[in-house]
Amino acid sequence: MAHTSPSYTFTIRVRLERTPGTFARVASAIAEVDADLGAVDIARSSRSHIWRDITVLAADRKHAQRVVDAIALVDGVEVEQVSDRTFLMHLGGKLGIKSKVPLKTRDDLSMAYTPGVARVCQAIADEPERVWALTIKRNSVAVVSDGSAVLGMGDIGPEAAMPVMEGKALLFKRFAGVDSWPICLDTQDVDEIVRTVKAIAPGFGGINLEDISAPRCFEIERRLREELDIPVFHDDQHGTAVVVLAALIGTTRLLGRELASMRVAILGAGAAGTAVARILVAAGVTDIVGVDRHGIIHAAREDAAREPFAWWVDATNPRNVTGGLDEALDDADVFIGLSGPNLVTPEQLRRMHDDSAVFAMANPTPEIMPEDIPDNVRVIATGRSDFPNQINNVLCFPGIFRGALDVHAREIDERMKVAAAHAIAQVIPEEQLNEDYVIPSVFNEDVASAVAAAVAQAARDSGVARRMPEGTTPLRIPASRGAGSLA
Amino acid sequence: MAHTSPSYTFTIRVRLERTPGTFARVASAIAEVDADLGAVDIARSSRSHIWRDITVLAADRKHAQRVVDAIALVDGVEVEQVSDRTFLMHLGGKLGIKSKVPLKTRDDLSMAYTPGVARVCQAIADEPERVWALTIKRNSVAVVSDGSAVLGMGDIGPEAAMPVMEGKALLFKRFAGVDSWPICLDTQDVDEIVRTVKAIAPGFGGINLEDISAPRCFEIERRLREELDIPVFHDDQHGTAVVVLAALIGTTRLLGRELASMRVAILGAGAAGTAVARILVAAGVTDIVGVDRHGIIHAAREDAAREPFAWWVDATNPRNVTGGLDEALDDADVFIGLSGPNLVTPEQLRRMHDDSAVFAMANPTPEIMPEDIPDNVRVIATGRSDFPNQINNVLCFPGIFRGALDVHAREIDERMKVAAAHAIAQVIPEEQLNEDYVIPSVFNEDVASAVAAAVAQAARDSGVARRMPEGTTPLRIPASRGAGSLA
Repeated sequence: MAHTSPSYTFTIRVRLERTPGTFARVASAIAEVDADLGAVDIARSSRSHIWRDITVLAADRKHAQRVVDAIALVDGVEVEQVSDRTFLMHLGGKLGIKSKVPLKTRDDLSMAYTPGVARVCQAIADEPERVWALTIKRNSVAVVSDGSAVLGMGDIGPEAAMPVMEGKALLFKRFAGVDSWPICLDTQDVDEIVRTVKAIAPGFGGINLEDISAPRCFEIERRLREELDIPVFHDDQHGTAVVVLAALIGTTRLLGRELASMRVAILGAGAAGTAVARILVAAGVTDIVGVDRHGIIHAAREDAAREPFAWWVDATNPRNVTGGLDEALDDADVFIGLSGPNLVTPEQLRRMHDDSAVFAMANPTPEIMPEDIPDNVRVIATGRSDFPNQINNVLCFPGIFRGALDVHAREIDERMKVAAAHAIAQVIPEEQLNEDYVIPSVFNEDVASAVAAAVAQAARDSGVARRMPEGTTPLRIPASRGAGSLA
Repeated sequence: MAHTSPSYTFTIRVRLERTPGTFARVASAIAEVDADLGAVDIARSSRSHIWRDITVLAADRKHAQRVVDAIALVDGVEVEQVSDRTFLMHLGGKLGIKSKVPLKTRDDLSMAYTPGVARVCQAIADEPERVWALTIKRNSVAVVSDGSAVLGMGDIGPEAAMPVMEGKALLFKRFAGVDSWPICLDTQDVDEIVRTVKAIAPGFGGINLEDISAPRCFEIERRLREELDIPVFHDDQHGTAVVVLAALIGTTRLLGRELASMRVAILGAGAAGTAVARILVAAGVTDIVGVDRHGIIHAAREDAAREPFAWWVDATNPRNVTGGLDEALDDADVFIGLSGPNLVTPEQLRRMHDDSAVFAMANPTPEIMPEDIPDNVRVIATGRSDFPNQINNVLCFPGIFRGALDVHAREIDERMKVAAAHAIAQVIPEEQLNEDYVIPSVFNEDVASAVAAAVAQAARDSGVARRMPEGTTPLRIPASRGAGSLA
């Protein structure tokens, strides 16, 4: 059986002769090429023929072509059209706007727009913080990309990045009620990106940077965080880091261990790998060994003075281990892969402790396939939805922005990220924890609100919250010139 | 009776003693200060008291305060709270996003987001024009402002401009189904604004500039039009111009005159006045005299070489009239005011022809109040909703962008604007035309679609349309590598 995927779902319009057994031969043809037959609808019929829309799940594009070819060879059958369900879903774009106020009458118009709106504008001009109460800023996030590092495809440009950013906006809404809009930039110049994001910031309560290639992403994020007074969060780095930490916390709970006692080996010292190492340090992990294509990162390496390696040298590898992945894995408790496909062997993982954990997150093909991982490894996680323990950023970014927006946070600091990771991990009750369930499902409805509450509290504790009261959105009318409360 | 406005609607929570006549005394108190009593609800009651929410329409803020004070003086009544309906409407912002696709199951997620979305991105990377079919670009407009000239309030900055831009977005959606998002800029530098708008353009199908002060608005619009391949439209200029032309066309239809035969005097040569003069020239008006605070614009004036006056000198005033507003109005058929309150006297308007027209559009107080206009003027229009013939941009911008987006127009050219004006005017059937009805109501549901159709056709005629087939949005799946149609 081929490994069919719902993301390769095709609907095939076929014309069949109205003779007994024709459709059965089509079904057999589909089965013979190892595809899954889904829904079958009748589109129309005549005296001699019947038209059916047959939905088929294939493994990939070539496989889909084999299905179509196989059907076309069946006697009495003609393939008229093939449509790709994924493309149909994206046609015309995936999001729109909606009005939160009625606009039916002239009175509605005179309050939502001129002349009434002028008083609302004036109230904000008089007291700028009212922008949080009286506009969409309180719930809006810009999803910003330059299209330079989109999923596994690399530099495909701003237009081609749009479907991902739209999808991200849907996830923000679906999981945390955050309104976000994709902003895909026609520049890859660091200064220009920083200038542009700063220029559009007034109407947004947060900036989610997405799919911007390293090392530019580091400088862009650092400068925007310094220069803006709203959260700037590069999800590819920090969302990944939070969810990896959540999985690690889940693992320690299962194993009855402490974070501080875990030896961690990280393969990959790019944007995500470095962010993971940073959050692990912030969360109390003390023994991390980082490995990249040049081997273990240590003080004597040629590039040790350059960022991000200088940070690694300073903050990790306390035992001064040298060598390569083999040496990094000796007696390790955790392997975290943020590198590429098939870069780790079963033999290498046998160097790890018993009851160890492997988070193999290269996507779509992990550093090692779960079925090849040896028995000394007790917990296995990947970035994929078709294996247990999926480490998916969706667990983090909606809730973390929800929490930050709820308190009008100035930034998302390390403490808020660590709080988010703990909140994700704690969603799984102690008694349900097991090897295949150290991290909750993306569809677990408790995650986003738990993350939001923990993040809001952490923001208050670290002083980046501008809004202190409990609760999420009490509505109070500003009282003063041009504003509401006259009494 | 004070001139009460629905945009000054207040809801007053009062506690009344449960004795006969208490509420009647409250109602009398409201009537005595000339306010309108609206809905009255019971909020709660006890043995001794009853709490009512009384909705009152006032003329302005001071008037509302007088109402509250008057109620507070009534025996047995206590005012507990006053809330401003307009502010309540704006609380939390007026728009949000909505998903156009389901996101309920893991399969949905795998098609809308990873891994399925990667194929959609790749299809756009392979053929960039597919961004129009497979993303929100086809229906998205950025509403861009720097907050420098917001309504009558002037330079109140980007945050305080947000309520207007959100309102604009609602109108785009309400009247033409266009999805737009407010982008309020933290810069008033021309170069910076041009750079920023260019940088964010890839995900948008059009740019609506709004409330940017003159003369910067001219250069910003000109440069963006030159450098972008999507429509850039400064609504304060061109939306106003289109609707003024529509009102003038309605007037000529009523009077049985031709545009070419009308003598027009325009007071105000700023952004809107200049745009109006330009569209009138494009539509065939030949005799325009422009007046600003220095008098009639003519070749001998000191500033005649500077824009926009050089254009005025070149394209208007064929009789070389000199002097001031008096001379401009001598024998004029139409007066168009885009200046300030109370700048025209009845005596001045008596210089115009019989059966003439006055469009007094200063807002909220016109150049002359309709009741003061002498009898030789037959058609009166203003920018206000409380007089007949409201010249309101809402009649133009939703439909003009709808039409431009439908054909993936590269720009909105003069021909498209003139077509929009004719379409607006033609919505009123010949037999319904009268002095108080030369321009349709903003709530006339036929306007936007008529404008869209006319604009789309004009775009095809002038060659700025990239999408030629009739109809609005046929959905076709791109056929090639990574895309849908395999057959």
